[in-house]
Amino acid sequence: MEKIRIGIIGYGNIGRGVEAAIKQNPDCEMAGVFTRRDPKSVKIATENGCVYSVEDLPAHKDDIDVCIICGGSATDIPKQTPEYVKMFNVIDSFDTHAKVPEHFANVDAAAKESGHIGIISVGWDPGMFSLNRLYGNVILPEGKDYTFWGRGVSQGHSDAIRRVNGVADARQYTVPIQSAVDAVRNGENPELTTREKHLRECYVVAKEGADLKQIESDIVNMPSYFADYDTTVTFISQEKMDALHKGIPHGGFVIRSGATGEGTNKHIIEYRLQLDSNPEFTSCVLVAYARAAKRLAAEGISGCKTVFDIAPAYLSMQSGEELRAHLL
Amino acid sequence: MEKIRIGIIGYGNIGRGVEAAIKQNPDCEMAGVFTRRDPKSVKIATENGCVYSVEDLPAHKDDIDVCIICGGSATDIPKQTPEYVKMFNVIDSFDTHAKVPEHFANVDAAAKESGHIGIISVGWDPGMFSLNRLYGNVILPEGKDYTFWGRGVSQGHSDAIRRVNGVADARQYTVPIQSAVDAVRNGENPELTTREKHLRECYVVAKEGADLKQIESDIVNMPSYFADYDTTVTFISQEKMDALHKGIPHGGFVIRSGATGEGTNKHIIEYRLQLDSNPEFTSCVLVAYARAAKRLAAEGISGCKTVFDIAPAYLSMQSGEELRAHLL
Repeated sequence: MEKIRIGIIGYGNIGRGVEAAIKQNPDCEMAGVFTRRDPKSVKIATENGCVYSVEDLPAHKDDIDVCIICGGSATDIPKQTPEYVKMFNVIDSFDTHAKVPEHFANVDAAAKESGHIGIISVGWDPGMFSLNRLYGNVILPEGKDYTFWGRGVSQGHSDAIRRVNGVADARQYTVPIQSAVDAVRNGENPELTTREKHLRECYVVAKEGADLKQIESDIVNMPSYFADYDTTVTFISQEKMDALHKGIPHGGFVIRSGATGEGTNKHIIEYRLQLDSNPEFTSCVLVAYARAAKRLAAEGISGCKTVFDIAPAYLSMQSGEELRAHLL
Repeated sequence: MEKIRIGIIGYGNIGRGVEAAIKQNPDCEMAGVFTRRDPKSVKIATENGCVYSVEDLPAHKDDIDVCIICGGSATDIPKQTPEYVKMFNVIDSFDTHAKVPEHFANVDAAAKESGHIGIISVGWDPGMFSLNRLYGNVILPEGKDYTFWGRGVSQGHSDAIRRVNGVADARQYTVPIQSAVDAVRNGENPELTTREKHLRECYVVAKEGADLKQIESDIVNMPSYFADYDTTVTFISQEKMDALHKGIPHGGFVIRSGATGEGTNKHIIEYRLQLDSNPEFTSCVLVAYARAAKRLAAEGISGCKTVFDIAPAYLSMQSGEELRAHLL
């Protein structure tokens, strides 16, 4: 079996997650980690695994089937995916929903010109949640969509708290409100405000002598991030933070609630994720789509794709025959 | 917009469900119901809708984009799908898992020869549950699959009870055992026997003077159907049966439970359906895949396909641009 040689671009949480996921997929192998840092300073988990500078990527053109871009959506991915798709088949986890059309267009143009595949916005949201929104909508065209996130750590909200005056460290959990979830699962099709869907739990380590009342007020009234939510702020010690809030769990659910026939028969489709590690799960999805990228490229297909464009069978090591026998 | 003209072959629960689903999809229209009965004897729900004999199908070759075969898996579909795919693009809901390879081969050969598409085993299991088993497996290669069915009516088990001596009517509900479901959701990866996963609730109307003890014993000891399960038998009146057990609800869940990284981070993927009407939901899935069949055929693709082979975007009325903007 010819293995899928995967290049990892960037070695943060996602890069490490991809490295681990490759080990769980016997048809994949790591072709190297590519970093903007000094390669000598980057210690990776794979024994005898190689770390290179991103500058060296062109020299590895023939050693890599698919590059997984493991940078951030704010500044890295919008630049890197259109650039690297000129040389490689690439996958990214671009998650700035509003900028997807622009990113898609950029990647599509570069990919078509070079004859490569670029699969963007792969992960769980966007990604698996998107797929479930689509399947739910096409099956129950008369219905309503609900997406709940959590209970899980929001990196963006945690960062926002850390920028508050007097805050030494912070962790924010997004929590779906159970009564809202229950109403949706019961097929009540409620209209839910932002405040009614999620609440925000904040754990904060204050700097010595900081004004706790002021910190709490700064957080709960912060526009966009917290003002529209019921937010709780709990002050804890750094020791407690390190002991209890080191993980990066997340998850959530996509629910499609609709009716058929004369409108009297109700149906609920629910897709739920409960993840101990948000980045490791995202990485697993990325690696599955790397398999699809190699196959599509081998068929001569090029351009930008999303999870919507990939037939599920392309994601599996198993043949069509095996899939029909074991999973259909 | 050129509508997708759908022919309905067979007018039982699924045929009626497809007829209703077409009305919820503005890009679809019913091209007629085709029946083995006397067409004059079949009253359909669509005003001005036409009922024809299946014998007349060849005459409608140019008026139909996709035929949905709404017969049973035991005898109708294995014969009808390979036959009608010679003239039409067809969709079926073939659900005899063990015979899928044979059915696939038959449909594939006929479809390739005639240049049509045949999408088989479309519905929720096989169908949406199969998709979720596949997505779960590729994302979490180190994990375990669990499929639970119910709470819902099993037509096959209800029929088996009706064949018991002294039984006038019967309805059987398959019920997942909550403690097993909870253990799976908790990531405990239990090994579950048949008896530990589901129980079977039977509601029975006995004929006058029948031996109730004997009926109960005949049911709970019936091999394959009930002997391996904890089964309850409740005798009720025909009035109560008609009042409380007329519906055909079903559902269930597919759970993939796996671990990533060093194996310490656990993840649960759960797909859950809660359906007031099993046949109407199946019908909705069939109509969505009819859309895909027309598109694939227009691209010149032929042969037998399953849900594994169809890129999700083909199921939606929306363009790639719209999907990326609204559902990604």
